[in-house]
Amino acid sequence: MSLNIKTETARIDDEIKLSSGKKLMSYDIKYETYGHLSDKKDNAVLICHALSGNHHAAGRYKGEEKSGWWDNMIGPGKPINTDKLFVVCPNNLGGCHGSTGPNCINDKTGEYFGSKFPIVTVSDWVNSQKSLLNHLNIPFWRCVIGGSLGGMQSLQWSLEYPELIKNCIIIAAAPKLTAQNIAFNEVARQAIMKDPDWCGGDYLKEKKSPDQGLSLARMLGHITYLSDDSMKKKFGRDLQQPNLKFNYEVEFEIESYLRYQGTKFVSNFDANTYLLMTKSLDYFDPIKDYGDKIQRMLSKTTCKFLVISFTSDWRFPPHRSKEIVELLLDNNKPVSYAEINSSGGHDAFLMENENYFKTMDNFIKRLR
Amino acid sequence: MSLNIKTETARIDDEIKLSSGKKLMSYDIKYETYGHLSDKKDNAVLICHALSGNHHAAGRYKGEEKSGWWDNMIGPGKPINTDKLFVVCPNNLGGCHGSTGPNCINDKTGEYFGSKFPIVTVSDWVNSQKSLLNHLNIPFWRCVIGGSLGGMQSLQWSLEYPELIKNCIIIAAAPKLTAQNIAFNEVARQAIMKDPDWCGGDYLKEKKSPDQGLSLARMLGHITYLSDDSMKKKFGRDLQQPNLKFNYEVEFEIESYLRYQGTKFVSNFDANTYLLMTKSLDYFDPIKDYGDKIQRMLSKTTCKFLVISFTSDWRFPPHRSKEIVELLLDNNKPVSYAEINSSGGHDAFLMENENYFKTMDNFIKRLR
Repeated sequence: MSLNIKTETARIDDEIKLSSGKKLMSYDIKYETYGHLSDKKDNAVLICHALSGNHHAAGRYKGEEKSGWWDNMIGPGKPINTDKLFVVCPNNLGGCHGSTGPNCINDKTGEYFGSKFPIVTVSDWVNSQKSLLNHLNIPFWRCVIGGSLGGMQSLQWSLEYPELIKNCIIIAAAPKLTAQNIAFNEVARQAIMKDPDWCGGDYLKEKKSPDQGLSLARMLGHITYLSDDSMKKKFGRDLQQPNLKFNYEVEFEIESYLRYQGTKFVSNFDANTYLLMTKSLDYFDPIKDYGDKIQRMLSKTTCKFLVISFTSDWRFPPHRSKEIVELLLDNNKPVSYAEINSSGGHDAFLMENENYFKTMDNFIKRLR
Repeated sequence: MSLNIKTETARIDDEIKLSSGKKLMSYDIKYETYGHLSDKKDNAVLICHALSGNHHAAGRYKGEEKSGWWDNMIGPGKPINTDKLFVVCPNNLGGCHGSTGPNCINDKTGEYFGSKFPIVTVSDWVNSQKSLLNHLNIPFWRCVIGGSLGGMQSLQWSLEYPELIKNCIIIAAAPKLTAQNIAFNEVARQAIMKDPDWCGGDYLKEKKSPDQGLSLARMLGHITYLSDDSMKKKFGRDLQQPNLKFNYEVEFEIESYLRYQGTKFVSNFDANTYLLMTKSLDYFDPIKDYGDKIQRMLSKTTCKFLVISFTSDWRFPPHRSKEIVELLLDNNKPVSYAEINSSGGHDAFLMENENYFKTMDNFIKRLR
């Protein structure tokens, strides 16, 4: 069968009260769907995206150079098999690819949200995704799936709406950030906020763009997504030109790669969304947030879990994923765990890998 | 005995031809000495500093808040024992604490060097330190000692002037940077160079200062100097205030620490020197530079080596130090190697640690 890709925007008119205490009276969620919803409406799968992701997870539109960010995983006959499943991937609230976010016009004021857009959390996203579920008139998610920040959303779904999620896949994630994780995010944020063109967050109003800061943030991010080993294999100490130049232009291939990644990113991403996403990562800490309540919450979930980590991921290494596994086992939840051998670093969750794909396929084939 | 600290500036009038092909006709090297040169002039030790270090390694001047950067290691009765040794610590050429560097006035033009200051390499430093040795009228170094970038200078000394160095201590170093190491340096450089106040390197002339960029570079550096574990112990996810603020001000202790480190650093360091030091790190690769010649060079050294690494150092982890050990063993050099248990990360080389200090003390006590 074909992918049957559709792009829609849901206008959600339910008021959402955010973790910060602020409210949004209504908002748009842009989303893509793949495959077909069954007559029983029992085959819907939610894909949650990570920091720089969006709703365009699979397929390729006319004129597009590259397919969606998880096209290797989602499609007819692929592990997230659109011949059988109805796959929904929204752009998160606060994102910059069509859902309501800082780069949108606030209907109330007629101006860009910019600095006025509230910080949203993983829990806020799950609540907005619940409204999308209602909007789609789907009774429950057969499975919620996400990698990295997306995996945190999967976990949060199992805690907040145990009755609405039958299976949960958490890839390359952690139950909370470490001080080092937060530190990297903070340097990225400072890079953006110290850019004079950030204008306190209101650069769109000022017709400016903090490109330098956002590009720095992305360069830094990239270092943490790749493993030392994968960088070594990809670039080593290869020079861009046969001889050293003894100046501050690009000397090594890795420098050229990073500058390119930085520049490419700013053409397609909003700096305020980047800030907001990193804060959402920093804040995520359900074990602390729920305290003693977490056992009661987990006791309600009937969800089956699959947790996956990658050996070379140093952003959220296997021992961090195992913290999630332990939380679930301690609460007698059925959980499968796979530690995948890969040199791909954190980004391995986006890469083709036989063991990884087989693990996904096996779990998803048996979804009940 | 007392530390007998002295601060001097050597005017070196020997022309130096740099690795880049550029020349300096003369230059100043500011240096400190501790202890007393023996009558036989056979007890001089050279300390090489790292990226952000300078000549002020030990002791405390009137009004100074903190002692020199290696005060725990250097002094009467300490591992680098100034009761017995005459210790010399220069500020490197291109530095910003008194030696000729980008923040100095070029006598020829009457203007700040700024962007005109040539990039210098580890080899250039060793050559300028050789001129300092001549200037001091000392026949040889009993030992050359350095950590991190300083350790690279120690290693380079043993290769370039085997007849002038009797012992060599290389701490928390590597024989070359990895792509990941270079990547971090490149992001730091981009942070500085994208700061509009960098002015192409001529900020002093323009009476500006790229503080934001330098502060970002330092914040990023700090993450790589500390281990994930030491950050966890020091900060964890501690909040600065009891409740989340949901804005972009400081939320977690680690953010406060990083911002403080960034701000403190810019008051005391020159951005162009930072750029130059990171380039010097990137370029260091004696095994490639010397190729087949390295065996012949090493065959001439009669030096005893001590190589030290720290378990939690992820900038130059133990396996990188072992590459140096292997190079030396393959060439039948006498080398002791110690892998010190520490959670201090790369910065462990600056921290008090019983096993580390004993290892240093035992080796230095037996210097011949």
